[in-house]
Amino acid sequence: MKRPLILVTNDDGITAPGIRKLINIVNEIGDVIVVAPNSPQSGKGHAITINSTLSFEELNLDGPQKDFSCSGTPVDCVKMALDKILPRKPDLVVSGINHGANSSINVIYSGTMSAAVEAGVEGLQAIGFSLSDLKWEADFDQAEDFIRDIILKTLENPMPKGVVLNVNIPKLNKSDIKGIKVCKQANAKWEESFDERTNPHGRKYYWLTGYFNNMDESEDADETALTNGFISIVPVKFDMTAYEYMNELNSIYK
Amino acid sequence: MKRPLILVTNDDGITAPGIRKLINIVNEIGDVIVVAPNSPQSGKGHAITINSTLSFEELNLDGPQKDFSCSGTPVDCVKMALDKILPRKPDLVVSGINHGANSSINVIYSGTMSAAVEAGVEGLQAIGFSLSDLKWEADFDQAEDFIRDIILKTLENPMPKGVVLNVNIPKLNKSDIKGIKVCKQANAKWEESFDERTNPHGRKYYWLTGYFNNMDESEDADETALTNGFISIVPVKFDMTAYEYMNELNSIYK
Repeated sequence: MKRPLILVTNDDGITAPGIRKLINIVNEIGDVIVVAPNSPQSGKGHAITINSTLSFEELNLDGPQKDFSCSGTPVDCVKMALDKILPRKPDLVVSGINHGANSSINVIYSGTMSAAVEAGVEGLQAIGFSLSDLKWEADFDQAEDFIRDIILKTLENPMPKGVVLNVNIPKLNKSDIKGIKVCKQANAKWEESFDERTNPHGRKYYWLTGYFNNMDESEDADETALTNGFISIVPVKFDMTAYEYMNELNSIYK
Repeated sequence: MKRPLILVTNDDGITAPGIRKLINIVNEIGDVIVVAPNSPQSGKGHAITINSTLSFEELNLDGPQKDFSCSGTPVDCVKMALDKILPRKPDLVVSGINHGANSSINVIYSGTMSAAVEAGVEGLQAIGFSLSDLKWEADFDQAEDFIRDIILKTLENPMPKGVVLNVNIPKLNKSDIKGIKVCKQANAKWEESFDERTNPHGRKYYWLTGYFNNMDESEDADETALTNGFISIVPVKFDMTAYEYMNELNSIYK
């Protein structure tokens, strides 16, 4: 196989330690172009920029890769990379390493995973990587060998069009990680509890807070795998049709 | 059945003609509380506001409903409504009527549909309505009877938890609408083509533009139904697991 062209993006921003680690890993594997947000874009989901403009600029950072900083969301970054920056379609798109888990329902809020899903919409091979550690100085070294393995396996075993991978890594030392487990998206949700405050002018405002409620104890759920010390891999698709409910719905609208 | 409590939201903003029409329709059916963005939020997908604050205020608009204008995204509106505004869990959440179609892949970019999906995550009955007409002064009257019919049928036939409806209405006179068709999400995508411009200071900037590429001619795809003059209803779920690829993935990571 000739040297692959790899696009790297994320949602924590182009200077985040997580993306710099991911760049180091893929620099050994292929020719790397980074197109990532110029500011944190966590929780941006699949947002795109319609009502304002976008821009990007090339940065001069250490390493053989090319780095482009983009003003938009993670999904904007993928779109701009494909239309304006990359010399050809990339062989792989990797997103992350996210500072914080994107398991279960978080796949839908996550800019990291939305970038990977957008690459899937474009018919590309794509993987999102997240580490269950929100800290800026999280230890990404422990996961390095696993990430390299998953990337190489994906290049050797291309996925069908429309499928991308959501990889979540527990916050453990390398020697304590039990292995890699293929999983489904756990049934879980956030229980919101907005934190109400009053501004100096007497007006109320709110911070989004809440706690995570895992309602899924099943053996093959990604949350279970992470709790048990495994790296979880969920194959993700963007066809959101609930096929299993179509018959009943047809009987209602016949 | 006692009078249902209905939450209304959208992504075009609380003053958009589409949401005002939807409010008129549901005012006849139940007790209505509107929590909608105070500014246009098209294309915001499932974005939530993590790194800045949110606020809302009650407006005094015509009609029996209560109107709350919220500073966040459509998904923020649903979260705030449930945690801070509604007296109890609503019996139904309706989003729209969107100015423009949200069929096929647009479900993933759409703030209107993401609000409905978020309600589904909360275990609520939810429907997103969109009219295939981007104009602010689009004629929402033609679809009124169909929308009422779909809302009443949904209240009478509750969906399983985790399923919401994506309803798209063709831009036709009422008498030319052929009926309602249960569909799957069409396989389609946007072919991006950023419009490059130069600002007065010599720096390049871009507008996201593109054309819609429908790759799905199948009879039960929502794009096909719309083209043929039907209202399309796609049951949508937020479990994005590609179950059909799990066996093969397991063989790669065994």
